[in-house]
Amino acid sequence: MKNFFITGLLLFISLASGQELRSPNGEFVLSFDIRNGGVPTYNLTYKGKPVVKESKLGFELQKDQYSLIDGFRVSDIKTSSFDETWKPVWGEVKTIRNHYNELAVTLQQDKADRQMVVRFRLFDDGLGFRYEFPQQKNLVYFVIKEEKTQFAMAGDHTAYWIAGDYDTQEYDYTTSKLSEIRPFMAKAVTANVSQTSFSPTGVQTSLMLKSNEGVYINLHEAALIDYPVMHLNLDDKNMIFESWLTPDVHGDKGYMQAPRTTPWRTVIVSDDAREILASKMTYNLNDPSKIDDTSWIKPVKYVGVWWEMITGKSSWSYTNDYPAVQLGVTDFTKAKPNGTHGANTANVKRYIDFAAEHGFDGVLVEGWNVGWEDWFGHHKDYVFDFVTPYPDFDLAGIRDYAKSKGVKMIMHHETSSSVRNYERHMDEAYQFMKDNGYDAVKSGYVGDILPRGENHYSQWMINHYQYAVEKAAEYKIMVNAHEAVRPTGIARTYPNLIGNEAARGTEYQSFGGSKPNHVAVLPFTRLLGGPMDYTPGIFEMDLSKLSPSNNSHVNSTIANQLALYVTMYSPLQMAADLPENYMRFPDAFQFIKDVAVDWDDSKYIEAEPGQYITAARKAKGTGNWFVGSVGGEQARTSSIKFDFLDKGKTYIATIYADASNAHFKTNPQAYVIRKVLVTNKSKLSQFVAPGGGYAISITEAGKDAAKGLKKL
Amino acid sequence: MKNFFITGLLLFISLASGQELRSPNGEFVLSFDIRNGGVPTYNLTYKGKPVVKESKLGFELQKDQYSLIDGFRVSDIKTSSFDETWKPVWGEVKTIRNHYNELAVTLQQDKADRQMVVRFRLFDDGLGFRYEFPQQKNLVYFVIKEEKTQFAMAGDHTAYWIAGDYDTQEYDYTTSKLSEIRPFMAKAVTANVSQTSFSPTGVQTSLMLKSNEGVYINLHEAALIDYPVMHLNLDDKNMIFESWLTPDVHGDKGYMQAPRTTPWRTVIVSDDAREILASKMTYNLNDPSKIDDTSWIKPVKYVGVWWEMITGKSSWSYTNDYPAVQLGVTDFTKAKPNGTHGANTANVKRYIDFAAEHGFDGVLVEGWNVGWEDWFGHHKDYVFDFVTPYPDFDLAGIRDYAKSKGVKMIMHHETSSSVRNYERHMDEAYQFMKDNGYDAVKSGYVGDILPRGENHYSQWMINHYQYAVEKAAEYKIMVNAHEAVRPTGIARTYPNLIGNEAARGTEYQSFGGSKPNHVAVLPFTRLLGGPMDYTPGIFEMDLSKLSPSNNSHVNSTIANQLALYVTMYSPLQMAADLPENYMRFPDAFQFIKDVAVDWDDSKYIEAEPGQYITAARKAKGTGNWFVGSVGGEQARTSSIKFDFLDKGKTYIATIYADASNAHFKTNPQAYVIRKVLVTNKSKLSQFVAPGGGYAISITEAGKDAAKGLKKL
Repeated sequence: MKNFFITGLLLFISLASGQELRSPNGEFVLSFDIRNGGVPTYNLTYKGKPVVKESKLGFELQKDQYSLIDGFRVSDIKTSSFDETWKPVWGEVKTIRNHYNELAVTLQQDKADRQMVVRFRLFDDGLGFRYEFPQQKNLVYFVIKEEKTQFAMAGDHTAYWIAGDYDTQEYDYTTSKLSEIRPFMAKAVTANVSQTSFSPTGVQTSLMLKSNEGVYINLHEAALIDYPVMHLNLDDKNMIFESWLTPDVHGDKGYMQAPRTTPWRTVIVSDDAREILASKMTYNLNDPSKIDDTSWIKPVKYVGVWWEMITGKSSWSYTNDYPAVQLGVTDFTKAKPNGTHGANTANVKRYIDFAAEHGFDGVLVEGWNVGWEDWFGHHKDYVFDFVTPYPDFDLAGIRDYAKSKGVKMIMHHETSSSVRNYERHMDEAYQFMKDNGYDAVKSGYVGDILPRGENHYSQWMINHYQYAVEKAAEYKIMVNAHEAVRPTGIARTYPNLIGNEAARGTEYQSFGGSKPNHVAVLPFTRLLGGPMDYTPGIFEMDLSKLSPSNNSHVNSTIANQLALYVTMYSPLQMAADLPENYMRFPDAFQFIKDVAVDWDDSKYIEAEPGQYITAARKAKGTGNWFVGSVGGEQARTSSIKFDFLDKGKTYIATIYADASNAHFKTNPQAYVIRKVLVTNKSKLSQFVAPGGGYAISITEAGKDAAKGLKKL
Repeated sequence: MKNFFITGLLLFISLASGQELRSPNGEFVLSFDIRNGGVPTYNLTYKGKPVVKESKLGFELQKDQYSLIDGFRVSDIKTSSFDETWKPVWGEVKTIRNHYNELAVTLQQDKADRQMVVRFRLFDDGLGFRYEFPQQKNLVYFVIKEEKTQFAMAGDHTAYWIAGDYDTQEYDYTTSKLSEIRPFMAKAVTANVSQTSFSPTGVQTSLMLKSNEGVYINLHEAALIDYPVMHLNLDDKNMIFESWLTPDVHGDKGYMQAPRTTPWRTVIVSDDAREILASKMTYNLNDPSKIDDTSWIKPVKYVGVWWEMITGKSSWSYTNDYPAVQLGVTDFTKAKPNGTHGANTANVKRYIDFAAEHGFDGVLVEGWNVGWEDWFGHHKDYVFDFVTPYPDFDLAGIRDYAKSKGVKMIMHHETSSSVRNYERHMDEAYQFMKDNGYDAVKSGYVGDILPRGENHYSQWMINHYQYAVEKAAEYKIMVNAHEAVRPTGIARTYPNLIGNEAARGTEYQSFGGSKPNHVAVLPFTRLLGGPMDYTPGIFEMDLSKLSPSNNSHVNSTIANQLALYVTMYSPLQMAADLPENYMRFPDAFQFIKDVAVDWDDSKYIEAEPGQYITAARKAKGTGNWFVGSVGGEQARTSSIKFDFLDKGKTYIATIYADASNAHFKTNPQAYVIRKVLVTNKSKLSQFVAPGGGYAISITEAGKDAAKGLKKL
């Protein structure tokens, strides 16, 4: 009888567990409920059809702590709405609307007297939800063994996926049914200098999916702060993804202290692929900028002493005298130069001249600082000091020369993943940058992480990347971190994070090549969390012409390369090829010179993951538009309207397109350029070669300039 | 035939492998030889008798690298002599002689075409040797699986040992035969907040031994830089110790890059125990000071807000409001004070007043900075910021008050072993110290190490402790690191390392007590590598009088506590008890006020490990001497001569001794003080109680002061 009364009492004070939340436009319905044994679940429908079927929520805990999996009841429910419009410091659009309905469910776990909140935000483009652990007596410090968040798929969708990995995202995408992930996994895991697979059905976010019914679904996370990266592991019998966090050296997956929250888990959904590309949900789930004065944060178009090393034409290192070097011990002034060092003063000045002549903002130089002789693969702790140039890099002379030419030098900090060493030198390195006129840094994390046992995406490292960005902000330094964690919209909060690599970039075109449709996937996945320093603009696809021993081929046409400046949105865009290669194709190069890097508006005109993307963007503070279109492995015809242009105005459109016989493999440099007049009534039907694309620059037609031009 | 010729050739160019080296005084003979299969070996004799029997040298390597164990031949031999006298910045003596004969054997491993040098230095007090890896083609980066250095003992010696451990040295010593280490191990491993045992016969250095023939042997290391701590693992069938390095998280025991050297392995030997205590070999094997201007490094006698927290009388924390706190989030100004916070302004000023009145140089305050509420045991990353005081600690007011009283404040940096966090804040924390008049810091490493998987004595942490000391030197800050690695003479090179804990300190008298003979072992072991911040001077042994819930008893008499200021040499000496306890015994306290902390000369008068130590020291720049004598568990009579005093002079000796009925357990506060006249002909026969001791201050007798005093 006693038990009966207690149960009755609990039932009495329990709130009805089933809850529903609708998106502002009513197209999404999120349902939350407590199932057998007190297990919290949710499901999501879109236009009346299931997108995420009933899926469990919770955590398995380490260290003998009772898990946060079952025994829950709903003790409080709060709903609210939010609608704001904010201005990004840089971006695809001038303003972003952040509009959602919210449901916060407080879950009471009576057995342990603990509370956990699940907060759902339903936008017109999808769902974000996170866990929150309020301050309380019985849940203070805890260690996550595994987050058990499920995403139960409604079918055997097509997935555009890369293999789950604790150390690299630099894989080509595989397109397959969910049921094919397992058989395709072995082939999907290609070689990388640091990589750690974990499951035959483990994949990375952001994961793009398409249902048989033509619904596009993207699974990712937002606001990843001091928490391990979430991978997704597929139960491929039931098509249920479950979160799989990146462990630390002990297999622990998150050291937590309440009060705190997890990152947001996101489900972006649309039956129009273009809406996925246009989604700003990931940014909206991040906090507003914590940098008050953002006037020093500026988009950058740049060239650099980089591709020549990547292709093997020159070297990062200065000397071949020693089997290994030691900073502070090795006397580089007495070493014999190897004659291949790219970052020598004369060569750097050549790039500065080139940048100045063609209107680039900056010049990146890699290999300028001592330590490159044995920088990689040795777990070397004191590998770089970030402030000591090689003898042939005249730091002061280059600094003054660049300044005289109106060009900004871009710093390079390769850490070799010796992370303690980087943190030890970070203040001095940032101050050194400011003292020498560098406002932006490209950082790198090549190789296995030091401290040993940590991975690129474990909580320890997520904490580090954030530390580097926040400290850079103190120095008014912009960061472009390579091999770091893929972004999750944090650039809203720290807009000095102007770029990341965190995916397979153009460098892989020199390491064996990437799939020709790679760039038609990235905007659906990697770019949703933030911009990528993809380093496009390669004009010479036969890399043996740069370096005889390099047999790699760039799987792209020149027109495709031009289109990337528009389709791969980034406030940081490199013209990656060598000056001499641009000078061979000055008419095509003109587009790179003209294209903007910051925008007032963006329109996605055509989109299908892995097949094509066509985007039009309006250059910041102007009436000019730029269009980019990339295809996939097959040729196609792109059909677009120019209805995004102002009514009644006539524009000059310069179209940089694949020649009819162009092909990424056999004829990548065949392009045609034509100038035509367009209005907002114009339409274009444009051939796109295999691995090809096209780019258009559109300027308002001055009377003189328009003379003699035909209408499209 | 071909093989024959090659072998013949190798034999022809090989040098004779057997080599001998004698110490300057001829008492030691070091022999080196190559044994079967090309295994390098050494042995050491003292006065014609074996101390280290034939013992192997070498390394097992990780990562499939061919080990450095056999296949060696001698390819070069160099011998030399060295004799210098150097002046320590602080110390037991004014000048130190560094006098040795050296043998450097270059070993060629033909199979792998690699070289390794073993460098032996033979002093009049023992042997130091190290491995050196010159720059070469086939041995650049390598990972040590285990160092295989042997120390083959000549008998089943008596050992004064603590259990080998990767995380703590804070054990009571066990005295046993070598053959008894195994059965005594379980009892030797007492509880510690961070501890990692590894072997039933593993012990720590510095290890003190005594042979049946009365030869005293000490095994330790010197100049431990960027290399794991060496433990010793005993083959207790053959009485052979072998090095056992502290591993990293992967079990690796040293990431190496040639050119480099290992620390020195040391064997200090004498048939007079006093010579072990007087040995300066460990310092001599370290490099001279790398700090040019050492004028800012000054010995310190201090009091502190510390023992009251250790005993439970007050707390480090400020509030009990929260289950956990978060820096930058928790608003301490709104928290309710718990009323027990020791580091409050009024209490600190009380200590400053006390220090000023009684002539102490400094006041240490622990618990002054926010974060102590949950500082320990949670693997908390951002646990302290080292610059934010609690609301009741008026930093500026205290700073100005201390300055007005001529007292130096001593900073406290508890890291909670969150080492990344400490390094991130180190520059700011050190600068904050300088800005606020702090010249010295006590740092702490309580709890398990972050990054997880590293241990207190792994290479990663050795690197860190060194980093902290070197960076402190840049700021002209003196360091006293607790729970850090036991010193290995590095203070010669960085004399700003004025103290370490690195052994079981006085705090354990509040955690259950230490053995009464503990202080008669430490100078034979822990102190050989550098001074210890032992924090003596406890006058109230019944700790329940300070904190009712504390049942611990200080196993020492007051006279023993006074003696420690002389027997436990340190340039940093605390008077650890509460001011009010000193005021109860002002006549005994007078010795603590009078005793010097820096010396021109030191004489060890009596010594037997674990039983007694009597030392006399001449205060720096004066004619005054101080004598300290500590006993062990049994009462004894100490017999000393004052022949260290200047001839023909009469001195006043104030003798602070145990009363005849004194006993560390039952009657620790019974002491007698007498004043007598002494000359260099005087002799003293002095009762020492169980756990007791005596202290003497000796000043030249002015005529008036000597009036009425009797001769000893």
